[in-house]
Order: sequence, then structure tokens, then C-alpha cells
Amino acid sequence: MDPEIKAIRELMASRPRATEISQMRADSDARGAELAKKANRQVKAEKVSANGVDAEWLTTPDVSADKAILYLHGGGYVIGSIESHRHFAAEAGRQAGARTLIINYRMAPEHPFPAAVDDTVAAYRYLLDSGIAAKNICIAGDSAGGGLVVGALLAIKDAKLPLPSCGWCISPWVDMEALGKSFIDRAETDPQVQKATIEFMAKTYLNGADPRHPYAAPIYGDLRGLPPLMIQVGSIETLLDDSLQLARKCALDDVPATLEVWPEMVHIWHIWFPMLKAGQRALESGGAFVRNALRGN
Amino acid sequence: MDPEIKAIRELMASRPRATEISQMRADSDARGAELAKKANRQVKAEKVSANGVDAEWLTTPDVSADKAILYLHGGGYVIGSIESHRHFAAEAGRQAGARTLIINYRMAPEHPFPAAVDDTVAAYRYLLDSGIAAKNICIAGDSAGGGLVVGALLAIKDAKLPLPSCGWCISPWVDMEALGKSFIDRAETDPQVQKATIEFMAKTYLNGADPRHPYAAPIYGDLRGLPPLMIQVGSIETLLDDSLQLARKCALDDVPATLEVWPEMVHIWHIWFPMLKAGQRALESGGAFVRNALRGN
Repeated sequence: MDPEIKAIRELMASRPRATEISQMRADSDARGAELAKKANRQVKAEKVSANGVDAEWLTTPDVSADKAILYLHGGGYVIGSIESHRHFAAEAGRQAGARTLIINYRMAPEHPFPAAVDDTVAAYRYLLDSGIAAKNICIAGDSAGGGLVVGALLAIKDAKLPLPSCGWCISPWVDMEALGKSFIDRAETDPQVQKATIEFMAKTYLNGADPRHPYAAPIYGDLRGLPPLMIQVGSIETLLDDSLQLARKCALDDVPATLEVWPEMVHIWHIWFPMLKAGQRALESGGAFVRNALRGN
Repeated sequence: MDPEIKAIRELMASRPRATEISQMRADSDARGAELAKKANRQVKAEKVSANGVDAEWLTTPDVSADKAILYLHGGGYVIGSIESHRHFAAEAGRQAGARTLIINYRMAPEHPFPAAVDDTVAAYRYLLDSGIAAKNICIAGDSAGGGLVVGALLAIKDAKLPLPSCGWCISPWVDMEALGKSFIDRAETDPQVQKATIEFMAKTYLNGADPRHPYAAPIYGDLRGLPPLMIQVGSIETLLDDSLQLARKCALDDVPATLEVWPEMVHIWHIWFPMLKAGQRALESGGAFVRNALRGN
């Protein structure tokens, strides 16, 4: 096994896992701050209200001011924040040659579905209103944020707004019912995400809404007309079939899709990029895809 | 719909479809010759016996003499030849910066499974024996040839030969039983390949052998240790699930895989590249993957 991912898995296993939501959120933020220090990148962070949504502009050297990634953090719609994902979202922008707008969309249980979708669309309108062309925007996210990328694209399509140039889905969660066979045949290899985790997050987020609502589970949506998607998944993930099902739905609806399967990698391995070359390489690969999509339009 | 693929579909529909194997082979060769003329590329073709296998070296300007693609044509293990695929295989090499060795592996019904696998391994040994390093070789192919890429990689692994740098599978056929759901939900969109076609080809090729033999249906093999695979599939193909299942098996066995889903594209759309920009772009994308893999080692 890649010695770096081995060390990360050992580190993950050595840490206590919180069960209270407030502690889970605090732990996630602490990990983000710790990794940001290790990343040692020059990032300018500027707080902003994006159409009423708490947000930050993250700017790294040499990126285009007129190109943007709208970044949606992961955490099952229940945990995660700008704090937990700042370094990671900034690096995604750096690799894509764009500034990153990362948002604190409202989360469950305080604000269940579709608050996260509403906030994402509001932040997207903020980008358009501030003069950034849709063709110069990518919506990106990880885990729940990766599913939210596609849910928000559907909401943007339904709102008849111009669609962005592309979407970038990192270990996306797109099936609220956890029907993937990988919840069985990857249960032993995945150190983080189990079917019970997903069921808890889905129940908390949906708060009684239809688990097959396309804004929550976009594999049940009509994806026709959506821009190209880059999907990246770790080979050992219980969420493997979420990525495969998303790629399949793209095919059925004639959406260009690239799916990358990264051997031995864990859920959202990119976040460990300061200590994981495969994370850095995955950011480079996704970033190159975005850069190409933003240039091509 | 892309007007170029629309025109190609009309052209395909306008032509009579042979039912006799000899006529199918002649039609396939004629199409290859016709497209080669349209391609209008400078290709040097040199006949050679590759360890007893009828082959040709295809060289385009500016490729490295020490890098090679071993190309395996499609046609259900029953039809297809150097003649039908020469222009296409040469262009794959050109995009990858490598020479192409294209082979006439023995076909069914005259020479059933595993003759095609044996010939591919023999030709691979020829490359190694002629001084080309394994790290400078890619094995590529389309349809049956795309499945044969992976079947041959397993045979090469079993023979304890050094493995090549990567594999490139274009619309690969990897399931001899045609179990994919896409044989149902893509039956209406696919103008070429139907479940009955696959069943006929499989029966002819296998000639009584186990339909789950890993050299014929590599999704049943142990892929561990195989080099990175690029898998490209058209969104309207009945063989869509073959590609998805191959990507899934790569994940289970920790093989790096990139799956590209190309909207509106038909089975092996690359072959039409002289009149189809999406075919040319798919060759560029696959070629870039190979170029990168050959450079990286």
C-alpha cells in the first residue's frame, strides 16, 4: 500500500470519533486548520456575503480574477465548513487557475433540505451578478458537496439561469438510500463511511423529504443539458457505486463525464494533499479538467 | 444532435448489413480503406511477422521509435483486420507519440478462444524481444479488441512477463454473457450492437469455453497489479455497462482507471475520425493518456 495513505489511515484510526454533531463539527474544523498549516500555501481569504450566504473568496497567486470555482464542502449536509475546507478549496482553485468562492451553506439538522440547494443557487447568482460569466464558472464539491454540485446544477437549469462550464465531483454522494452494492463489498475496506453513516446523514438532511428528489439524489433527475462532469472516487470507498451510478446517469442523459478511479484512496483523499502525493495529483488532474473547460468555452 | 454523428448514423443506416461472415469481413475492410483515404494522413506501413503473427508497423511523422502501441482491432473476434483498422490504429499511435504495431490475431470461427489471446501475447513478446521496454508499451484496442487488451494483460501477468505501461480500451466488450442492463435501456439508441449480436459473437468465439474465463471476460479476472487503464465509451451504446463494470472491477482490484463517457457517440466512434471531430478529440484524449503513461515510467 502507498505508505502515505497507510500513514493517513493510521492517523485516522488513532483519533477518537465524535458522536455528537457539535463535536464532529469542531473536529472537522480542527483538522482543516491543521492541514492548512501543513499545506503552507499563499492564500488570500476575504469574507463576503454572497447574496446573503456566508462565504469567502480564496485567491492564490497567478489565478485569473474573472474565473471562479464555487466550492461546496462535504460533511453529509450536517458537518463541515469554510474552516474545514479552506486550504483544500483554495488548492482546487489554484490548480484550475481560478479564484474560489467557498460557502457556508446552511446545514441540517438546523436547516434541512433544500436549504443547502437554495444557498448554492443564491451564491451562484451572486457570482453572475458580480460580472463573472457562467462560462467562466465551475461548481465543485466533495462528498455531500459533490452530490450538491449536481443537485444545484439541476436547480440552476430549472431556474433557467445560464449553466456553468463544468462540474467537479469529488467522492460524490448522490444516492440518499445507500443502495450501492459497494456498501456491502467495500464495507471492510472503507475506514470512514458505512451504510449507517449515510442513513443517519440522509435522514437528518431530508427531514421527511423524498429521498429521490433530484436536488438531493440527482441520479433521479433529468441531467440533459448539464455541462461536463469530472467525477473522482477512491477505489476503497463504500460510495464507489454512487460515482458509477452518476457516470451511468450522465450517459443515459448525454452529459459528458469523466470518472477517475484512484487505487487505495479513501473518501475525499484530496483533503490530505499536504501529506499525500496522490491527493495532490488528483487535485492537479481535476484542476486540469476545469482549466480546460473554462478555456474551451 | 451533433450533425456529424447524425450524418454518420444516416450513412450507417443506408448501407446493407451483411449476414455472412465473409461478406461482413469484406465490408469492414472496405470501410477501413474508404476512411483511410478520407483521413489523409502520412502513414508508413511495414509488414512484419511478429513472432509468427501477421502484423504491420505503422509509423507517422514525429513519433518516438522506442515507444509502441500494440493495437488490437475490434469485430467480435470474428471480423476486422489490419485493413479495416490501419488508419485508426495509426492515428492512435500518432496521438500517443508512438509507433503502432497492429496485428491480425487469429479469429473465430476458424480459430476460437484462446487463439486471439495467444497471438496477442506472442506479439507482445515480439516487441520485448525487439528491444522495446515494457514501460514504453501500451496495449490498445476497440470493442472485442478492447476486452482483449485486458484479457491479454492478465495472460501477460500470468506468464510473468513485465507488464506494459498502460491499457487503452475503446468501447470495450468484457462480458461474454451480455448481462449489462444497458442491453435493455440502450437497445433503442444503439444502431449497431444488440444483445443478439453479442450472443452470436460470444458463442462463435468461445466455441464451448467458459464464458467467464478471465482471458475472455476479464471482469471475472484478478486485475491486481495491472497498469492504469483508459476506458472510453459512447453514451448510446448497449455496451455501456461493459465499460462501467470494467471500471468497477478496476476499483475492486486497485487498478487506476479513467472512464470517459462521450455523449451521443456510437460504438467505436473514433474510427470515423476523418469525418467526426468528437472521434478526433477522443483519440487526442486517449492519446494524451498514453503519452503521459509512457513518459511517467
